[in-house]
Amino acid sequence: MNVAAEVQAKGKLAREAARTLANLNTARKNEALLAMARALEEEKDFILEANARDMAAGKEKGLSRALLDRLLLNEKRIQDMAVSLRELVALPDPVGEVTSMWTRPNGLQIGRVRVPLGVIGIIYEARPNVTVDAAGLCLKTGNAVILRGGSEAFNSNRALTRVISRAATAAGIPEGAIQLIETTDREAVNLLLRANEYLDVLIPRGGAGLIRTVVENATVPVIETGVGNCHVYVDAAADLEMARNIVINAKTQRPGVCNAMETLLVHEKVAAEFLPSLAEALKEKGVVLRGCERTRELVPWAEAATEEDWATEYLDLILAIRVVDSFEAALEHIHTYGTKHSEAIVTSNYQTAREFLARVDAAAVYVNASTRFTDGYEFGFGAEIGISTQKLHARGPMGPEQLTTFKYIIFGSGQIRQ
Amino acid sequence: MNVAAEVQAKGKLAREAARTLANLNTARKNEALLAMARALEEEKDFILEANARDMAAGKEKGLSRALLDRLLLNEKRIQDMAVSLRELVALPDPVGEVTSMWTRPNGLQIGRVRVPLGVIGIIYEARPNVTVDAAGLCLKTGNAVILRGGSEAFNSNRALTRVISRAATAAGIPEGAIQLIETTDREAVNLLLRANEYLDVLIPRGGAGLIRTVVENATVPVIETGVGNCHVYVDAAADLEMARNIVINAKTQRPGVCNAMETLLVHEKVAAEFLPSLAEALKEKGVVLRGCERTRELVPWAEAATEEDWATEYLDLILAIRVVDSFEAALEHIHTYGTKHSEAIVTSNYQTAREFLARVDAAAVYVNASTRFTDGYEFGFGAEIGISTQKLHARGPMGPEQLTTFKYIIFGSGQIRQ
Repeated sequence: MNVAAEVQAKGKLAREAARTLANLNTARKNEALLAMARALEEEKDFILEANARDMAAGKEKGLSRALLDRLLLNEKRIQDMAVSLRELVALPDPVGEVTSMWTRPNGLQIGRVRVPLGVIGIIYEARPNVTVDAAGLCLKTGNAVILRGGSEAFNSNRALTRVISRAATAAGIPEGAIQLIETTDREAVNLLLRANEYLDVLIPRGGAGLIRTVVENATVPVIETGVGNCHVYVDAAADLEMARNIVINAKTQRPGVCNAMETLLVHEKVAAEFLPSLAEALKEKGVVLRGCERTRELVPWAEAATEEDWATEYLDLILAIRVVDSFEAALEHIHTYGTKHSEAIVTSNYQTAREFLARVDAAAVYVNASTRFTDGYEFGFGAEIGISTQKLHARGPMGPEQLTTFKYIIFGSGQIRQ
Repeated sequence: MNVAAEVQAKGKLAREAARTLANLNTARKNEALLAMARALEEEKDFILEANARDMAAGKEKGLSRALLDRLLLNEKRIQDMAVSLRELVALPDPVGEVTSMWTRPNGLQIGRVRVPLGVIGIIYEARPNVTVDAAGLCLKTGNAVILRGGSEAFNSNRALTRVISRAATAAGIPEGAIQLIETTDREAVNLLLRANEYLDVLIPRGGAGLIRTVVENATVPVIETGVGNCHVYVDAAADLEMARNIVINAKTQRPGVCNAMETLLVHEKVAAEFLPSLAEALKEKGVVLRGCERTRELVPWAEAATEEDWATEYLDLILAIRVVDSFEAALEHIHTYGTKHSEAIVTSNYQTAREFLARVDAAAVYVNASTRFTDGYEFGFGAEIGISTQKLHARGPMGPEQLTTFKYIIFGSGQIRQ
C-alpha cells in the first residue's frame, strides 16, 4: 500500500470509529483499557523481540546513549505502561458531562455537553511509551487516534499498537480506534498535516524542530506543545532559604524536561547575599553557570552569558543567571525571552506576588514553588498528553478534559425565530 | 510605509497594548466603550462622507445591489453600532474569573483564571459594522485587535477605526488596542496569516473562499467560522404542524445566513401527509424546491435534486428535500453532507430525540426548534464575533468568553518536586 493510500484508509477507518467511540459508555471503555493492560503483560515477549530489533538498528546507526535509553523497553517498562493504562480506569470520564444548562426567555433549554474531539493525530519522536499512553488517554476520552512515531522506534511501536489495538477490538472497541501509520516514509507526516477531512486536531510531541515543522505546514488545527524557557525570579523580599531550595529543584531535579528552569533572575538587593553560596551548591550538583556581568562580579568563575543564553532552552545542567535592577526589569526579561510555559517568583511581599500573577503571561505562574510542577499528574489531572504552549483550546498540562470539546444540545417545544 | 513594515509595526504596537489591556479593570474598559459610542454619533458626518466614497466606487465597479446594501451606512446604521457598543457595557467581564481552584496534597493551591487571548486578527469582507462590533467585543474582553476589512469598504472602515480608536485612547485605552491594516494590498492578508509573533489567533469572517484561504495558509491558529449546511429532519413521530412551522422558519426567516436550513429530510411514513401542503406554503414564500425522486412523486413540480444539492449551502430561497427510509438514514445523510454547524430533529418520540442529540456531531443539535437560533444573542451571550465550525477552543456562537483563554495561578509556600 502506498503512503497516501495508507493515510486515507486509516483516516476513513478512524473517522468511522470515532462515531461509535463518541457514544460508548464508560464501563466499556474501561474494560478495554484493562484488556489492553493485560495484553501488554501477556505479549511482552513479542514486544521485547520487536524492541530488540529497534535497539540493534539504533546501535548500528550510532544513536546516542541517551536516545538508546529512551528507546529501550524491558519488563519493568512494559509493566509501567500497563499500570498507566489501569490508572486511567480510575479517572472520571469527562465525556457526557453537561457543564452548564440554562433556559432562554422563549423556553429553549440550552445545555453544553462535553464530547470527544473526534480523531486525534499524534506525531512523536523516540519514546515508545507514548504509543500506549496516548492510545489509552484517547480511548478513555472517546477519541480515535492515529499515531505516527519516530522511525527509530518503528518495530516497537508497531508491536505495541498491534497488541493494544487487538485487545481493544476484542473488548468491543470499534476497529480503527487505535492505529499507527506503518511506514517510515516521511511523506506520511506531510499527508497527516493536511488531512483535514480525517483529523480534528494534531498534537506534535518532540523537539523544537518537529514542532516547528508541524506548526508551519499543518492545515489541521494544531496544539503546540513543549518549548519551555522557564524563569525563577528571586525578589528583593524573598525568603532566601526557600529561594535556594526552589532554584536548585527547578534546575536540577530533572533538567531535560520543558518545565525545568533555564534562567535565574535575582533582584540586585539580594544578589550579593544569595548568589555566591547558591552558585557553590549548583556547582556541586554539576550545573554550569552563565552569568551577566553583575553575576560574574559575585561568582567570578561563572561563564559570561550572551544574548543567546537568555533565549536558550538548555534542557541540560546549564543555568543562565541575571541580576536585575527591579521587579519591572524581571517582568521585562520574562516578557522578552519567556515562552509562556512556566514562570515563578519567590517573594514574601503580598503586592509583588499579586502583580507577578496578574502580569506574567504564561500557562502556569507560580508564587513560592518550583516550576517543575507544571505537569498533568502534579496538577491532579491523573494523566497527560503533553503541555500546551499555545493559548487556543488548551493551555498548560493537557489531561482528559483537554481532549474533549463540547456541543450545545437544545431542547425545544416548537420554537421558531421571530 | 510598505505593507510588511505596516503589519510589523502594527503587530508590535498591538502586542504592547495587549500587555496593558490584559489588566485594565472593567470600569475603564466600559468607559471606553461608552466614549466610542458617543464618538460614532458625534462624528457621523465624517463616517458618512467616507462611506459615500466607498458607495460611489462600488457603483462604478458594478457591485451587486445586495453587496451595495451591505456596504451602505446611514444614520440609523451608525446609531445601531453605537447601541451595540453600549450593550457590551452591560455584559459581565469574563476576564479575571477564577473558574476553578483546588488544593493538592502537598498544599499547592492551583487556580484557573480567565485571561484575554492577547492579540486577535480579524479578516472580514464587506460589512463595515463588523469593524465596530469586533473592536468593541475585543476591547470588552481585554484583547488587542488587528482588523483587515474588505477593499470595498476601505474608506468606511478607516473612518470608523479612526473615530473609535481615538475615542478609546482618549478614555485611557493604550494606543494600538484597535488597529486597521490600512492598505488594500492583498499581500497584507498573507503577512497576517503568518504573523505568529504578533497574533494569538485569526478569525476569518466571510465567504467560503476567504475561509479556505485562511485555513490553507495560516500558521497562526485559526478559528474557522461560518459554513453551515444545516438540516431539519422530520421524524415519523413528528408533530407535523410544529414541523411545518419550524421548516418554514428555518428556511425563510433569513435565508442568507449560515444557520438557515439547506436540506429537509422527511421520514417516509409522514412524507405523503407532510410534503404536498408544506411545498405549497414554501412556494408561496418564493422558495425553489429541489427534491429526490420520492419527493417529486409527491411534489411533481419540484426540480430534481442532484448529488451536488445535498452538499450545497445555498444561502438563498432554495431548499433540497429528501425522503428517507429511516431515522438511521437521516443520521447517515447528515453525517455525510453536514458541516457540523446546526442540525434539528422534529419528533415527539423520547428515545429518538435522545439518540439524535447524542449521535449527531454538530455545534448545535436541536430537538423541536428552528436551526436559526444558533446565534450569540439567541443563546444569551449578549454579543457574538462569529460562529465557529471547528472543534478546538470554541464551538458554535462565540461570545465574550470564547475570546478568552486561561492561565493557571499557583500559590505555594516553598514546595519543590520530589
